[in-house]
Amino acid sequence: MDIRDGVGSTALLTDQYELTMLAAALADDSAHRRCTFEVFARRLPHGRRYGVVAGTGRVLEALERFQFGEPELAVVAPFLPAKTVDWLRDYRFTGDIDGYAEGELYFPGSPILSVRGSFAECVVLETVVLSILNHDSAIASAAARMVSAAGGRRMIEMGSRRTHELAAPDSSRAAYLAGFDATSNLAAVRRYGVPGAGTSAHAFTLLHAGAAGAGVGAPGTAESEAAAFRSQVEALGIGTTLLVDTYDITRGVATAIEVAGPELGGVRIDSGDLGVLARQVRDQLDGLGATKTRIVVSGDLDEYAIAALRAEPVDVYGVGTSLVTGSGAPTAGMVYKLVEVEGVPVAKRSSHKESRGGTKKAIRLSRETGTIVEEIVYPAAGPMPEVNGFEVRELLVPLVREGKLVDDLPTLSDSRDHVANGLISLPWEGLKLSAGEPAVPTTFVS
Amino acid sequence: MDIRDGVGSTALLTDQYELTMLAAALADDSAHRRCTFEVFARRLPHGRRYGVVAGTGRVLEALERFQFGEPELAVVAPFLPAKTVDWLRDYRFTGDIDGYAEGELYFPGSPILSVRGSFAECVVLETVVLSILNHDSAIASAAARMVSAAGGRRMIEMGSRRTHELAAPDSSRAAYLAGFDATSNLAAVRRYGVPGAGTSAHAFTLLHAGAAGAGVGAPGTAESEAAAFRSQVEALGIGTTLLVDTYDITRGVATAIEVAGPELGGVRIDSGDLGVLARQVRDQLDGLGATKTRIVVSGDLDEYAIAALRAEPVDVYGVGTSLVTGSGAPTAGMVYKLVEVEGVPVAKRSSHKESRGGTKKAIRLSRETGTIVEEIVYPAAGPMPEVNGFEVRELLVPLVREGKLVDDLPTLSDSRDHVANGLISLPWEGLKLSAGEPAVPTTFVS
Repeated sequence: MDIRDGVGSTALLTDQYELTMLAAALADDSAHRRCTFEVFARRLPHGRRYGVVAGTGRVLEALERFQFGEPELAVVAPFLPAKTVDWLRDYRFTGDIDGYAEGELYFPGSPILSVRGSFAECVVLETVVLSILNHDSAIASAAARMVSAAGGRRMIEMGSRRTHELAAPDSSRAAYLAGFDATSNLAAVRRYGVPGAGTSAHAFTLLHAGAAGAGVGAPGTAESEAAAFRSQVEALGIGTTLLVDTYDITRGVATAIEVAGPELGGVRIDSGDLGVLARQVRDQLDGLGATKTRIVVSGDLDEYAIAALRAEPVDVYGVGTSLVTGSGAPTAGMVYKLVEVEGVPVAKRSSHKESRGGTKKAIRLSRETGTIVEEIVYPAAGPMPEVNGFEVRELLVPLVREGKLVDDLPTLSDSRDHVANGLISLPWEGLKLSAGEPAVPTTFVS
Repeated sequence: MDIRDGVGSTALLTDQYELTMLAAALADDSAHRRCTFEVFARRLPHGRRYGVVAGTGRVLEALERFQFGEPELAVVAPFLPAKTVDWLRDYRFTGDIDGYAEGELYFPGSPILSVRGSFAECVVLETVVLSILNHDSAIASAAARMVSAAGGRRMIEMGSRRTHELAAPDSSRAAYLAGFDATSNLAAVRRYGVPGAGTSAHAFTLLHAGAAGAGVGAPGTAESEAAAFRSQVEALGIGTTLLVDTYDITRGVATAIEVAGPELGGVRIDSGDLGVLARQVRDQLDGLGATKTRIVVSGDLDEYAIAALRAEPVDVYGVGTSLVTGSGAPTAGMVYKLVEVEGVPVAKRSSHKESRGGTKKAIRLSRETGTIVEEIVYPAAGPMPEVNGFEVRELLVPLVREGKLVDDLPTLSDSRDHVANGLISLPWEGLKLSAGEPAVPTTFVS
């Protein structure tokens, strides 16, 4: 059984204050007031021009498992009144949720998720909703920039070792959503059907190098590297990718083609000046007749390094650390705020953290060409703003009605297409990697 | 049942290439060569002076669940030979592991974990070992700097919403290990026994503000804020902490003491210039006779902001985003490298990523005062280097023998003490927050 397969409650993925607030609200009967909580990001990470909503599907999955069994109740009973514990025992979310479709682009203030129900049933969801959206959106937003920078070349996510072991498969999922082609992470292959990839590491070459006594060549010699390559090709076939930079790359490439022949699938370079090396290796491969052997590069790549390699003969990028850490922005900074109580807009007024009261909707305007020009956020209670001369698309779609997931929720593949279409819809400056303003302005109608 | 409670296999928290390497190694019989893999960090994050090893206990727990059942085998069978699948079916780690104790300080090149066994049984552990150590050590290393900066004041971890939902409880664990006092995360309370904390958010005050029609005061008035405070004090007692910055802080503090009286446990400020506000609020509280009411501050605190508040009358720090994202270093950058095969040291030679061959041990030297002065890393096969005039402590301790965890592994509380002692042992400049060199030099004896 996989550690993640729906075997457990998500109810303790929660901050204690949600339950103490609940206790106080149950005590004074404010718990039953009808509320709207909204998820939004006050700003994009420094200089980013767009964000990608990711994690919505996982939020809905977590919602279905947000139930307090006796083991969960035993944890919270010591600090809660009996009445609150009883209320939690029966907890099921019975409200409505609308949200930006998973894979939708977002901008500062976009009402990404709108959760409506009693205060009590909504307030307890804050942490699990934010944890998922903040993590997955951070990864997907970074990944989309890398995919743009790669200009259609194949992208493999290989960052599992640089993030929490259970965040890793969800990082793979977010990267795939944003346009990556494959992942090294087997849990993501299982759980999400992301295509798997990966062949060999330096350890495999060194394993053969270190065993001079075992008759396969002295340490660090061409002979020992050849033994490793030969073994890999025999086990995995001629389409495999050989890692050629354990010792000397030029010799590694020569050995690879000597062992595998010019039909070898690929060679990987994991260190050094990747641009210079890619060009040298391409020339060398072509000279050896291995014109179709692909060049895979990896090693501390981020969107800028990927872009810098655009003119070089690189076929595949393997991206790790910078992807799973959101390339400088490891969390999306989204918040979950109470914006309406019994039909009345509410908002705090403390410095620097103002929020806009009231339940909201949003539309995005585009030209006939499909290029987006503006986002408009407006009160859900009011009419949709009149706009002339633009295509209009509503951004909030129903996700949950009376506690039940709506039918026909998008698949991961649908959401992946949604990201791809979103990136095409950006004005050209929106795809620039340099720091700048959001790709389109957002107007807030009150 | 908690989602994390040992119900699942950890075997797919693995990169595909480990299993393809395994397949090739089983095919050419190199799989059975005796190997050592070592975990180390080539460098500390920019300017850091020390790191804190965290996650060791979790690695050992993951190791015990690293087994391939039929569901896991079904995922890997499509790309592996039948012989490899059969081998995985019977997989149990039978080797030895030594490592730095959880909570030990580390420096560049410290051999944090030494995993010994056949190539096959060691190579498959790479990803899960690194995911755990890289995540937990990143959080603990950042947390330790914050704890030093706080100079003994109470620290609450509240970053769950800004990290993956299943990374959150392990972030709490790492923060507690490093000296934090409590966490908001209920899963961490359950799983690790970290003390819980948390009382109220702006939503609770706004809930009462928005319900003028419900008879508890018009939006944003002192009356509605008072209704919220009264309710919280009634439900949670006089020792609770009231959040006073929803509207106007001075009025919020006045209302808090009016409602709760001068025995109120605490007030929390979550926005604005925290230093200035803390002083004003302290004066106001003292003037109202609430001389023992604590001041809790939160809102985008990192180690530098914490240090900057040192002269202000702050009693408790609540830290979120910067903690769970490692304060600029969200991953510790540790690697898992093959260093020895059948007794022969091996190392790759590619540019910028050299590693040192051979199984290693390490000692740390300190003066009689307890202040550490140097770390020495030396070949495990050789004698311990002779040092005169210093106390000597061996850093690698046995963790696993012939596949079994050793007895009397440290508890989380033991490891927490270990961090505290480690911080005391640093030379004074090692605790500086500014960028600098590692606190002590490391000598590599070959």
